[in-house]
Amino acid sequence: MNSLQGILKSHPCPAKMDAGLLAQAAGDLWDCAQACTACADACLGEDMVQNLRRCVRTCLDCADVCTTTGRLVARQTEPDSKLLRGQLEACVAACRACAEECERHASHHEHCRVCGEACRRCEKVCDQLARMVAAA
Amino acid sequence: MNSLQGILKSHPCPAKMDAGLLAQAAGDLWDCAQACTACADACLGEDMVQNLRRCVRTCLDCADVCTTTGRLVARQTEPDSKLLRGQLEACVAACRACAEECERHASHHEHCRVCGEACRRCEKVCDQLARMVAAA
Amino acid sequence: MNSLQGILKSHPCPAKMDAGLLAQAAGDLWDCAQACTACADACLGEDMVQNLRRCVRTCLDCADVCTTTGRLVARQTEPDSKLLRGQLEACVAACRACAEECERHASHHEHCRVCGEACRRCEKVCDQLARMVAAA
Amino acid sequence: MNSLQGILKSHPCPAKMDAGLLAQAAGDLWDCAQACTACADACLGEDMVQNLRRCVRTCLDCADVCTTTGRLVARQTEPDSKLLRGQLEACVAACRACAEECERHASHHEHCRVCGEACRRCEKVCDQLARMVAAA
Repeated sequence: MNSLQGILKSHPCPAKMDAGLLAQAAGDLWDCAQACTACADACLGEDMVQNLRRCVRTCLDCADVCTTTGRLVARQTEPDSKLLRGQLEACVAACRACAEECERHASHHEHCRVCGEACRRCEKVCDQLARMVAAA
Repeated sequence: MNSLQGILKSHPCPAKMDAGLLAQAAGDLWDCAQACTACADACLGEDMVQNLRRCVRTCLDCADVCTTTGRLVARQTEPDSKLLRGQLEACVAACRACAEECERHASHHEHCRVCGEACRRCEKVCDQLARMVAAA
Repeated sequence: MNSLQGILKSHPCPAKMDAGLLAQAAGDLWDCAQACTACADACLGEDMVQNLRRCVRTCLDCADVCTTTGRLVARQTEPDSKLLRGQLEACVAACRACAEECERHASHHEHCRVCGEACRRCEKVCDQLARMVAAA
Repeated sequence: MNSLQGILKSHPCPAKMDAGLLAQAAGDLWDCAQACTACADACLGEDMVQNLRRCVRTCLDCADVCTTTGRLVARQTEPDSKLLRGQLEACVAACRACAEECERHASHHEHCRVCGEACRRCEKVCDQLARMVAAA
């Protein structure tokens, strides 16, 4: 169990959403943010970096979007559902764009393969969470 | 002229959008990110902080969302229009929610009044930019 | 194994530091960034938030410092040892300040206890990494 | 006058430091964070990106460090001087490393010249502020 889960359990404001899904989303978001940060950096270090420009760009964008979304998901006090839903939907779009680009390079670069998988997991859980926020 | 404008002018990839609007958006995004960071902190220092919980929360969220959106807008290499549009729309929602909350406290707290105005400017320019990205 | 570890293994530039320590540091940094984000939010939701102002402030600062340090640690291409060492030392100071404050509230608030422990782990691993960078 | 200045003036906790210097530092930090984000992106778009790897890396690091430092400087409630000083010193190191690298490319790339100047301004004001925090 990571520290976030322990903190959410002792939070004075009860979560309006399924605590298990929240914790999974937070974990996947931060894993994806790290993966995209490192994949952009690994692409930059490759001999053929000029063929990986688009991958660096989408990884940098996706890392920023996931970091911000991960911060919003970690907060429970006085949430605003439109704000949260908007950011989750933006994150789905970012993860999808980044996954599609990473998957194009997956057979040549293991770091792109691993990053693409992290993006797909994150895309899926953010989509679930966005639907749950919309339905609440 | 800030440094960003000088850099965008000498960027090897020509901007696909109106350079003036891009520079204005970048400026308004970073002004709003700073304003929200400082307004959350000013609310935290108020005697009646317990009445300002929602304002602190929306300010923290809006600061994070604007920071990320400002980073995306500052990049011109290999942009992805769906990703950018999604983040701009999330930023419109964040600025709107934060402006509405800050405006409720504007008559009591000057910092909320100033922050609310920064959020409205940012909401407007991000909405313009999102429509432009959608039309391109 | 998280995605970052898989990416670091397939990175074109070999890590100059112990890969196990790097991965542990990255994990502890992101765990601490999340914990501090959530603890600031939990403190904001407490009835006696006016007694927790300093805890909110140090948690917000520590979350920002750990997020940035975590990004630097995830990169291996063309590292600058003075830059990295400076940020690691700043992170040690941030984690220490936040741990000291959280520990003062640990007996009353479980979220502060958990967050304080996350800060101490992060302080320790960043201190180790900073010494290693200095010695290299 | 930007929004931050208006908010700092109406903040319930009086600044312990010279308000003019604080506002200048905040402005220079956010200008540098934007400049470094855009210069990393411009370098990525250059034909000879493989010669600019180190510049992309230091720009990305410096953008992250300046963003975090800018957030800390924008807060006035319950500051911790060791934490703030540590981050300001880390920012001086980051700006110096990034300025040195950008200056190596300044005659070939206008974006590197502009970014190097933004880094030098930021280095200088953060150094002044760090000394002031240490003396207080």
